[in-house]
Amino acid sequence: MHPPDDRAHWLRLVLTEGVGPQTARELLARFGLPGEILGAGFPALQKCVPEKIAYALCSEPDPAMQAQIDATLAWAAQPGNHLLTLADDAYPQALLTIPDPPALLYAKGRVELLSRPALAIVGSRNATAQGMQNAEQFARTLSGSGFTVVSGLALGIDAAAHLGACSDEPGRGSTIAVTGTGLDLVYPGRHRALAHRIAEQGCLLSEYPLGTAAIASNFPRRNRLISGLSVGVLVVEAALQSGSLITARSAVEQGREVFAIPGSIHSPLSKGCHRLIREGAKLVESAQDIMEELHWPGSAPILATASGAEADTDIPDSLAPAPARLLKAAGHDPASVDVLAERSGLTMSEVQSALLTLEMDGQIERLPDGRYQKHIRASNRH
Amino acid sequence: MHPPDDRAHWLRLVLTEGVGPQTARELLARFGLPGEILGAGFPALQKCVPEKIAYALCSEPDPAMQAQIDATLAWAAQPGNHLLTLADDAYPQALLTIPDPPALLYAKGRVELLSRPALAIVGSRNATAQGMQNAEQFARTLSGSGFTVVSGLALGIDAAAHLGACSDEPGRGSTIAVTGTGLDLVYPGRHRALAHRIAEQGCLLSEYPLGTAAIASNFPRRNRLISGLSVGVLVVEAALQSGSLITARSAVEQGREVFAIPGSIHSPLSKGCHRLIREGAKLVESAQDIMEELHWPGSAPILATASGAEADTDIPDSLAPAPARLLKAAGHDPASVDVLAERSGLTMSEVQSALLTLEMDGQIERLPDGRYQKHIRASNRH
Repeated sequence: MHPPDDRAHWLRLVLTEGVGPQTARELLARFGLPGEILGAGFPALQKCVPEKIAYALCSEPDPAMQAQIDATLAWAAQPGNHLLTLADDAYPQALLTIPDPPALLYAKGRVELLSRPALAIVGSRNATAQGMQNAEQFARTLSGSGFTVVSGLALGIDAAAHLGACSDEPGRGSTIAVTGTGLDLVYPGRHRALAHRIAEQGCLLSEYPLGTAAIASNFPRRNRLISGLSVGVLVVEAALQSGSLITARSAVEQGREVFAIPGSIHSPLSKGCHRLIREGAKLVESAQDIMEELHWPGSAPILATASGAEADTDIPDSLAPAPARLLKAAGHDPASVDVLAERSGLTMSEVQSALLTLEMDGQIERLPDGRYQKHIRASNRH
Repeated sequence: MHPPDDRAHWLRLVLTEGVGPQTARELLARFGLPGEILGAGFPALQKCVPEKIAYALCSEPDPAMQAQIDATLAWAAQPGNHLLTLADDAYPQALLTIPDPPALLYAKGRVELLSRPALAIVGSRNATAQGMQNAEQFARTLSGSGFTVVSGLALGIDAAAHLGACSDEPGRGSTIAVTGTGLDLVYPGRHRALAHRIAEQGCLLSEYPLGTAAIASNFPRRNRLISGLSVGVLVVEAALQSGSLITARSAVEQGREVFAIPGSIHSPLSKGCHRLIREGAKLVESAQDIMEELHWPGSAPILATASGAEADTDIPDSLAPAPARLLKAAGHDPASVDVLAERSGLTMSEVQSALLTLEMDGQIERLPDGRYQKHIRASNRH
């Protein structure tokens, strides 16, 4: 995706001590791509960043950093490994809507999942057996309905959610693990097999440089990516002091939905969920509840063609109303999203999610110019 | 309270076929007391009510009604039994704020409880053991904190709530059972001992004439009195089709708070509670949660005297802030509620509930003119 030197520039930028996501974005906004930042010269840089950072950006990288850059580029050259910069098309669009997207992400696995609607499932590391089962069941249903399930690879609820979202059926189920370590390390160690499976069937993602070990302070920060990648966060079980509540707070700050599963008032692991519900999180009893809350296509009961109305035999009856209306509105010529919204009377977000369903189902295709066209094929496929 | 013939007039009014609470109130509003309604004459009555009712009100009572009136007056003459009309001071004031208060209530037991702040606890007849235990525990704490616990004498949650609110400690604990039958009958039959205990330590209440057997359609209607008597309704366990949801709906219509206890998403008896929470009921984990939500005095953590501030040694430290502030504001002279609100900076409802606490605690007394005065007595009572 990048000429090698371009990616080396990005790495130099983000690996420079003192350059966090915010500084990186400010420099990018001011100077352009990293190559231009690095060539801007000390006087210009000094106006934007502290002297020490300006000096570091102007100098040749020290041997340790050069070694890190070389190792990272070698890592990225291996199959399945990716570096995603803010300038990449494959950079998760959802993260562009959060206040502090990382300038560079490390990814391993199916990066295309990063562009799909995702739902986070998080919770306690010391979950109950019932909590684990709930997480797995919700994850299975949600991933089977087209959501990518995002979690944090931790013990307990996280692991159950990842497992539930991994499916042996090809093309079904998908999961993203956002880690708090470099992607060349697995934490916790006993999740090595799970991490391998996710790298194959899903995607591992981190903003931390290779070699970054498990540091407690990195995990809460990582949580903003779990919620940021997702349209909503489901908290399955959480004590009052659980890190999951940090993820839920991130979600609220980012304008994401928060869902929580209730439980016994005598279970300490339900107290965090109950607190969230009192603070406005949606109480959910099933994955269906979540999909209905999100107006997810397929979650609504299937409506029969209105009596007396002309039946459009092109449209499979099993489709939910929004996709069906959209398919009808699409006609047989390419149409932009705006036009589809106008013709169908659906909101933009309904159109977006209906398009996704139809695209996944092969009913409609996205043309290179961004417009959509109905996919013509033999009828009676149902 | 009434001259006997006055109560006979009330009974004639409410026992007349076709005269429900609304018609009774319309007639009372138009003509005055029942004696005046009965003497108004057919032409005047006919302008307000259907001809048949007007005719019945003008005629002498038939033998069956006369027997019912006589039996009811005899019942009311027994110790502990009461007839409460809309014109009585002892009529529960809370019911005057609902859309359809009964014109006449039958009561058995401590009618003074009808004027105290009450909280309803309702739920499934087929409750779980844990649900029963929760109901009993919440009822015990709430009644110990000064609430009268209202419920419906049904099996399951209702019975557990009544039992939890009955205390062997004199003066502590109080409960009201609003029944769907005449007060001379007990339904369900196996609650005969419970009903007797409530009649002694609490109060039984019904709007149905003596002899009214258990008719399914009377129970939902009875539920409006359970919520109407209360500042809020707690639903402990309820299936989706539970009658408790009718009580909760009444509560919402009457402007009462609704509280619900969450539970496992796999328990059918939690589904009703979860639905209520989704619709806006407050999720509660403890009786303390309810009292905090209602700003009930004593529910807030006890605040120590602010450092450096002058300590008022008259005020027991164990008092919650609102009563403590009120006691300070009360000074040693009689003061009206308005004056107390102004001096203390508390809202009217905070003042009202703080006054109640202080009055029950013997710290303040209500004077015949409606003003309040601090109760002077020996110190070191704590």
